[in-house]
Amino acid sequence: MKKLINAADDVVHEALEGMALAHGDLIRVNYDPAYIVRADAPVQGKVGIVSGGGSGHEPLHGGFVGRGMLDAACPGAVFTSPTPDQMQAATEAVDGGAGVLHIVKNYTGDVVNFEMAAELAEAEGSNVRSVVVDDDVAVKDSLYTAGRRGVGGTVLLEKVVGAAAERGDDLDAVVALAERVNANVRTMGMALTSCTVPAAGEPTFTLGEDEMEIGIGIHGEPGRERLPLQPADRIVDRLLSPILEDLPFSAGDQTLLFVNGMGGTPLIELYIVFRHAASVLRDRGITVQRSLVGNWITSLEMAGTSLTLLRLDDEMTQLWDAPVLTPALRKGV
Amino acid sequence: MKKLINAADDVVHEALEGMALAHGDLIRVNYDPAYIVRADAPVQGKVGIVSGGGSGHEPLHGGFVGRGMLDAACPGAVFTSPTPDQMQAATEAVDGGAGVLHIVKNYTGDVVNFEMAAELAEAEGSNVRSVVVDDDVAVKDSLYTAGRRGVGGTVLLEKVVGAAAERGDDLDAVVALAERVNANVRTMGMALTSCTVPAAGEPTFTLGEDEMEIGIGIHGEPGRERLPLQPADRIVDRLLSPILEDLPFSAGDQTLLFVNGMGGTPLIELYIVFRHAASVLRDRGITVQRSLVGNWITSLEMAGTSLTLLRLDDEMTQLWDAPVLTPALRKGV
Repeated sequence: MKKLINAADDVVHEALEGMALAHGDLIRVNYDPAYIVRADAPVQGKVGIVSGGGSGHEPLHGGFVGRGMLDAACPGAVFTSPTPDQMQAATEAVDGGAGVLHIVKNYTGDVVNFEMAAELAEAEGSNVRSVVVDDDVAVKDSLYTAGRRGVGGTVLLEKVVGAAAERGDDLDAVVALAERVNANVRTMGMALTSCTVPAAGEPTFTLGEDEMEIGIGIHGEPGRERLPLQPADRIVDRLLSPILEDLPFSAGDQTLLFVNGMGGTPLIELYIVFRHAASVLRDRGITVQRSLVGNWITSLEMAGTSLTLLRLDDEMTQLWDAPVLTPALRKGV
Repeated sequence: MKKLINAADDVVHEALEGMALAHGDLIRVNYDPAYIVRADAPVQGKVGIVSGGGSGHEPLHGGFVGRGMLDAACPGAVFTSPTPDQMQAATEAVDGGAGVLHIVKNYTGDVVNFEMAAELAEAEGSNVRSVVVDDDVAVKDSLYTAGRRGVGGTVLLEKVVGAAAERGDDLDAVVALAERVNANVRTMGMALTSCTVPAAGEPTFTLGEDEMEIGIGIHGEPGRERLPLQPADRIVDRLLSPILEDLPFSAGDQTLLFVNGMGGTPLIELYIVFRHAASVLRDRGITVQRSLVGNWITSLEMAGTSLTLLRLDDEMTQLWDAPVLTPALRKGV
């Protein structure tokens, strides 16, 4: 295991300390229980947006805490759900009196713990709603889920919904928007290599030198099939077809195309992926109106990519373009 | 070689096409000769800022083209200097009548070709100056350089100098600022793994499962020493000490601490690196006033990190904070 870490048990805590030191102007970190909160929380009269999940997917979610996106994020151990007490404390820390939305990726542990946290926070007087993100078209059920997994669409949903809360939408409107984004976004990923959870010390799975895994999950859980390595354009075809068929997307759709790296994939490769994906969409009469390219929801140092396609409406586009100021994602104010 | 590419010979061209498709609102790409230019170039009355170098270091330089940073970037083949005709065409494309600055990383091919391009562009009527960045304290000479290599400091210099040109500083002022930034910035890097140039198909070098290379160059060229893998904090000590001694940095200095990933290193590890680096600086009485953490100047998929420390003055801090709108780096307007 070659990693820039100290003790495996200290990885999450030390990374949080690093974030606090690097971004003290934007966020505050609470350590026990662990959560990251925007520096000016709670914002009175604004719906609080809370997400969280296992660590190892950085910058998701902690890197998205700040004005115009998340009010708080709860980091679990690597690839492990955070605990209800983290989520409850984060919820109460961002409750400005207008209610709190939990954005939950669809993994069994996350769903159960966020439900418990919502009950605990409501018992203390918070008004909590939740949306479960399940955008992964690769598999119906998986090692960690009943139903589809929540993956790349989460990044887009957090941005759009965060912008709506920032402009003052009420809790009902924010919930409806979150459900609309989730209903209009689809993702599928693949891996060239595995990743190694620090506490495990061994790769989560193994792939041969000329193999790839199509439909991989963000914890390295199995996808649809293991195939011989192919050129980038053929890989894009394999990822994009199931996405397009699933919603389905149609000619005339306005979309946001998000090409994500799994953590160990360099940007030069992601642009090669973007090129062909955009070309396929153009040939189908689908417009790429907005784009995002980079390592935004990762699986530690895994090499690979995922494609996410969001069908935009005018409101979503406007909210995507709205200012955001977080450690990882920034747009002009 | 496991990469998300098609033919090895098409990597740079296809990645440029991907960039053009993803960021058409910010940049334009010219293909023959190849350069990336901000969408509104040339900006009349503004000093044009041009950089460039081998590809494989993305987002450097092409991802930094846009308002408040570079006017143009010239991408060479992977780890290979661009040609003088690229640089000349880019120079002429951004010349708004106030002169053009070339930002050149100190590698022999880059320096020679930028010099030739400057002569050609001046023969066509452009007023061209240049600054050579040589911030790497690891080695005095290397495979590709006479003198120190230009590495992470280039990112900071391009941001600060780009902001000065954007606010309307004249060519003399921009050149003086560039020289001041270069004089006040130092970097040292290390690698956990090698990288593979697509056209070569084999790793540039090999490291054992428990080995690391300290003082690595951004093309995988040798550094100071090859050592057994150590905990992150000890690695930070090995990188930071030579940086601090070299300038030297002293108690009371205001600094920007830049923790860079080499392309295959996940963000969670970079924050662990940042944590200890910030702590060492605090113990020495050096203030970390600004920070940058992420994969900004990379070596394809290499795993590793570099630390860059810039001694700030008030003007540099103000220019660092100024708005920037590029594919990779954005700050509020």
